[in-house]
Amino acid sequence: MRIGILGSGLMGGKLGTLWARAGHEIVFSYARSEQKLKKLAREAQGNARAGTPGEAAREAHVLLLAVHWSRVDDVLKQAGDVSGKTIVSCSLPMNAGDSGLVVAHTSSGAEELAKKVPKARVVSAFGTVPSEVLFDVFESRRKATRPSLVYCGDDPKSKKTAAELIREVGFDPVDAGPLRMARYTEPFTLLIAQLAYEGDGGPELAYRFERFVRKG
Amino acid sequence: MRIGILGSGLMGGKLGTLWARAGHEIVFSYARSEQKLKKLAREAQGNARAGTPGEAAREAHVLLLAVHWSRVDDVLKQAGDVSGKTIVSCSLPMNAGDSGLVVAHTSSGAEELAKKVPKARVVSAFGTVPSEVLFDVFESRRKATRPSLVYCGDDPKSKKTAAELIREVGFDPVDAGPLRMARYTEPFTLLIAQLAYEGDGGPELAYRFERFVRKG
Repeated sequence: MRIGILGSGLMGGKLGTLWARAGHEIVFSYARSEQKLKKLAREAQGNARAGTPGEAAREAHVLLLAVHWSRVDDVLKQAGDVSGKTIVSCSLPMNAGDSGLVVAHTSSGAEELAKKVPKARVVSAFGTVPSEVLFDVFESRRKATRPSLVYCGDDPKSKKTAAELIREVGFDPVDAGPLRMARYTEPFTLLIAQLAYEGDGGPELAYRFERFVRKG
Repeated sequence: MRIGILGSGLMGGKLGTLWARAGHEIVFSYARSEQKLKKLAREAQGNARAGTPGEAAREAHVLLLAVHWSRVDDVLKQAGDVSGKTIVSCSLPMNAGDSGLVVAHTSSGAEELAKKVPKARVVSAFGTVPSEVLFDVFESRRKATRPSLVYCGDDPKSKKTAAELIREVGFDPVDAGPLRMARYTEPFTLLIAQLAYEGDGGPELAYRFERFVRKG
């Protein structure tokens, strides 16, 4: 698949790298500098290159949106026409000070995004794990039990694609239902952030949903 | 410890039963009928009895609040003075139709409860797992890896008590920080509810936070 990375920061840089290693064709775009994009592309050790958001979007099947909420409008404007494309978004609707959500309860960042790009298919995913854990999970992907990763969206085909991309980086995809479930997964991300960054155990945190059924 | 159960429904009935088996003294109160309370007390196979919310509260060290949000004011009124007591609450601020939270984002059910009983010490816990999983987790409590259970609150001593009560029923307590973190744990509960009741796997769902750190 051709995957365009819109926002090549902590999440976008790492996910793009892992997907390049999994055999996808990656265009990294929208970082602080052209140098950073080129370095990412070089170090991804796969079919990866640096480009503009427009170039990232042009022939992509999937776009990863991984920018700060304050940059969403700008990067979408630069990306141009995204009709028919699957947008996997991990952009949380955080305020400028990163202390809380600007959209919650009665809507979600994912739903607001879907309103901005009504012809694209938005799947919310990857927001619920810290970027610090991504490479660790990828390296342990052959273990019997994988950590979970919730995703939600309204388009079945795009959700299937997102689930595959989740699986390729080492997680067990967990379908949380329609896009409006992002009203719950986005606050869950802030719970994860609290445990990852305010607790004692370090940020390499993941989670796993498990069913406990008594034998007999 | 003496533990008063305010609301002996699915959660309160099961948690009270498990704590009675762990050796605590339990008063079950506030169910649909006196008969149900007596049956719970009889079947708990421990030091348990039926009582009114006032009796449950009177000599209790800890109160479990496990009523529908629409019943909180009523049960607190019946409980009487709760000054100095630890209230462990799993009551989510759900609307009458149980389709959504009436308090979220800028406050939480736990914080609203703390405002109602300013002299009590509120800890938010047990809301994040379905009642269906409780007995299964309790029975597998000697396994090496236990499921997590998040709790939050502002009083360190009460949080320590809550952590112990969480441990006794088979979970690994995870401190999520101050009471305002209930703004994130309460929506997380609705994510859990979606996975437990709308998914294919059945409601016996628990979760576990895990740290992934690469070796070497």
